[in-house]
Amino acid sequence: MGKTQSHIISSARELTQNKQLKPSGFWALGSGNVNEFDRWLVRKLLDNIGKPPLSFLLWNNEEITSPDIKPHARIRIRSRYALYKLLLNPELNFGDLYSVGSVDVEGDLPSSLVDIYHALGRVNGKSLLSNFTRPAFQHLNSPDKARGNIHHHYDIGNVFYKQWLDRDAMQYTCAYFPGPAMTLEQAQTAKMHHICRKLRLQPGQTVVEAGCGWGGLALFMAREYGVSVKAYNISHEQIDYARHQAAATGWSQQVEYIEDDYRNIKGDFDVFVSIGMLEHVGIENYQQLGAVIDNCLKEQGRGLIHTIGRNRPALLNAWIATRIFPGACPPSLSQMMHIFEPREFSILDIENLRLHYVKTLEHWLSRFDQNIEQYRKSYGEEFIRTWRLYLAGSLAAFTSGNMQLFQVLFTRPHNNDLDWSRAYLYQNHPPV
Amino acid sequence: MGKTQSHIISSARELTQNKQLKPSGFWALGSGNVNEFDRWLVRKLLDNIGKPPLSFLLWNNEEITSPDIKPHARIRIRSRYALYKLLLNPELNFGDLYSVGSVDVEGDLPSSLVDIYHALGRVNGKSLLSNFTRPAFQHLNSPDKARGNIHHHYDIGNVFYKQWLDRDAMQYTCAYFPGPAMTLEQAQTAKMHHICRKLRLQPGQTVVEAGCGWGGLALFMAREYGVSVKAYNISHEQIDYARHQAAATGWSQQVEYIEDDYRNIKGDFDVFVSIGMLEHVGIENYQQLGAVIDNCLKEQGRGLIHTIGRNRPALLNAWIATRIFPGACPPSLSQMMHIFEPREFSILDIENLRLHYVKTLEHWLSRFDQNIEQYRKSYGEEFIRTWRLYLAGSLAAFTSGNMQLFQVLFTRPHNNDLDWSRAYLYQNHPPV
Repeated sequence: MGKTQSHIISSARELTQNKQLKPSGFWALGSGNVNEFDRWLVRKLLDNIGKPPLSFLLWNNEEITSPDIKPHARIRIRSRYALYKLLLNPELNFGDLYSVGSVDVEGDLPSSLVDIYHALGRVNGKSLLSNFTRPAFQHLNSPDKARGNIHHHYDIGNVFYKQWLDRDAMQYTCAYFPGPAMTLEQAQTAKMHHICRKLRLQPGQTVVEAGCGWGGLALFMAREYGVSVKAYNISHEQIDYARHQAAATGWSQQVEYIEDDYRNIKGDFDVFVSIGMLEHVGIENYQQLGAVIDNCLKEQGRGLIHTIGRNRPALLNAWIATRIFPGACPPSLSQMMHIFEPREFSILDIENLRLHYVKTLEHWLSRFDQNIEQYRKSYGEEFIRTWRLYLAGSLAAFTSGNMQLFQVLFTRPHNNDLDWSRAYLYQNHPPV
Repeated sequence: MGKTQSHIISSARELTQNKQLKPSGFWALGSGNVNEFDRWLVRKLLDNIGKPPLSFLLWNNEEITSPDIKPHARIRIRSRYALYKLLLNPELNFGDLYSVGSVDVEGDLPSSLVDIYHALGRVNGKSLLSNFTRPAFQHLNSPDKARGNIHHHYDIGNVFYKQWLDRDAMQYTCAYFPGPAMTLEQAQTAKMHHICRKLRLQPGQTVVEAGCGWGGLALFMAREYGVSVKAYNISHEQIDYARHQAAATGWSQQVEYIEDDYRNIKGDFDVFVSIGMLEHVGIENYQQLGAVIDNCLKEQGRGLIHTIGRNRPALLNAWIATRIFPGACPPSLSQMMHIFEPREFSILDIENLRLHYVKTLEHWLSRFDQNIEQYRKSYGEEFIRTWRLYLAGSLAAFTSGNMQLFQVLFTRPHNNDLDWSRAYLYQNHPPV
């Protein structure tokens, strides 16, 4: 069992062991009854989150909804303590309360969360201009801190991820579904081809990958495109797994996995690629990342960054940022430009694959659910509730347009070795 | 003859009539001889612009070049006055001196300018980070000021532009050459199809165009895609021409040309499109432009902005900004995001067509040169030198990577009616 998995479980245990499931004193008083103030609070909460088509089911089974709203699902609140906690900090506490079962959703979880995102979008829309000026997340993702943050999520245990990610390359990032009926394995393969084609990989080229996960893309690039790859990652368990895979398949000569921070990348490469790392870098480090790329990319080099993003600078959902991905912050495009503009990189192509992440998450959630009895036995109820909420919440965020998925292709300013159109990406497409 | 044409000509006359071609006093002293100080200044100038592979040919026919540089071309400086003026403000005065013939280029003009851009890129690269922080252009493109600025360039006379732009649609913006051997007419048609396909135009839809030039795209959209278009422009001569064309071809019912500022756009449209207007809007007005789009775009609407851009925020070449396009400022992508992020528009696709502008400018320059004897007779030598320098300088700016051409496709955040891939853009491609 990885250390983070036990961290999530012990966080959940703390929650169940504190007062919320064993209310006493003021909190317990009248917990069986629902008073006028409770009802007023629930209505206020519904108003504040923009009146989604949902009802609240209180601890006495009383149902409260906004007038003239036909609810799609019911949110059960099991105690007054849970209600108060939810009101105090809905963004953080909804997740915590859901994890331990103090709050539940009766109905489809992902689509209830989409309803909430849409409703919140309407409310936030009103104060859009003032929100826009609030400062972006300030993290200090120093190399040491980064190692802890990455360890938190990615070292849960390779066996666990293996059961619900694609079998071929264990890609824990958005797949590419040029045909929506593709399997997850086909779509992850199509994603890797799409990236390699954008980068115009040629046999014999050298590639550096920043944040290589379980090493699937590096291996794929070497095998399918004949390049040699140096792939960096600070997750010990992932690097271990990747090295084992490369050795077992006979690619250790051409693919080197390096357990180190992207800030320590050294060398001179034809291609820079980074898939799903930028979310963990922190906006304040983007200019430094640009310098790293500038130092390691050849004169005619190309680069691609694939990242979750936002339509405008915004904080990540507090629960995800606290419980799931400490230190994470998906950037808006203006924020991403802090990487490229100071070094005068030339952006060639930006593609938004938002709905592809919806499809990817549907596959992940469905595979997670296929294994749910086993997880329940091994890790307990809180763990599976936490993970289901995280996957369903992400699905809802991409469905509702709250999150984006950007692939940004770039080169140096003087490089005129460019294609006349992007048509070559779509010949024999999808290239599975 | 349009008023701007006469403005350019009279600017040129002022220059020829002032002291530079009739040096007297200090300036005249020793104009025939070249002294050590003159030579030192020329070497300093070569150093300052990054030692391009060019030599300077002074007024006594003495040639000066940087050591170990093999010159591709010679820049002739006809007087000490011209040399001093060039040193004082090379960016602005090179153009002015070239226009009146006080400076000349012996060799290929576009490729000499590419050499200068490359050399300047090397010099600026050294102080890249400090340059990055300098403030962007501050223009006050109020509606009245904007009208004057646009009038300056676009009302020179339709006949003049007609002779070197594409014959079919008079597009004074970058064409699209999916095959580089296309004619200018084919490439401008391909550009319009590419834009219409990105926007997924459907018969019966309503389109608003901000800054419609001579109206070619609006007419094309109505004719080829069955949409109705309201097209805005503040250039009186262009609107006049466009209305005449629509009437003559029987499309006045479906295409309405409105002589007004984009800030006065009213209505509710399926599509917003703007080709080559953003360069004139001014960064400080981008948030207002975003509000205009937000107010006129339907819930499932799409928009596209096609604009000259930069890899990072930078001032436009001083001569172009003063003599050719007053008030113009091509944005970097981070600057463009001021339009989209405050209103939470979702960027779907950004394509950089930089090399397509090189091809477009090659065609324009070649057609300009085909008519050059006629222009010389009608408008005089200064006028043709000014225009050739402007076209060749633009060609050099795009060739050297100093300027970019961005097409930015966007929609509202909740719009899930999106294609699974961009492959549909490349079916039967190019769609000529």
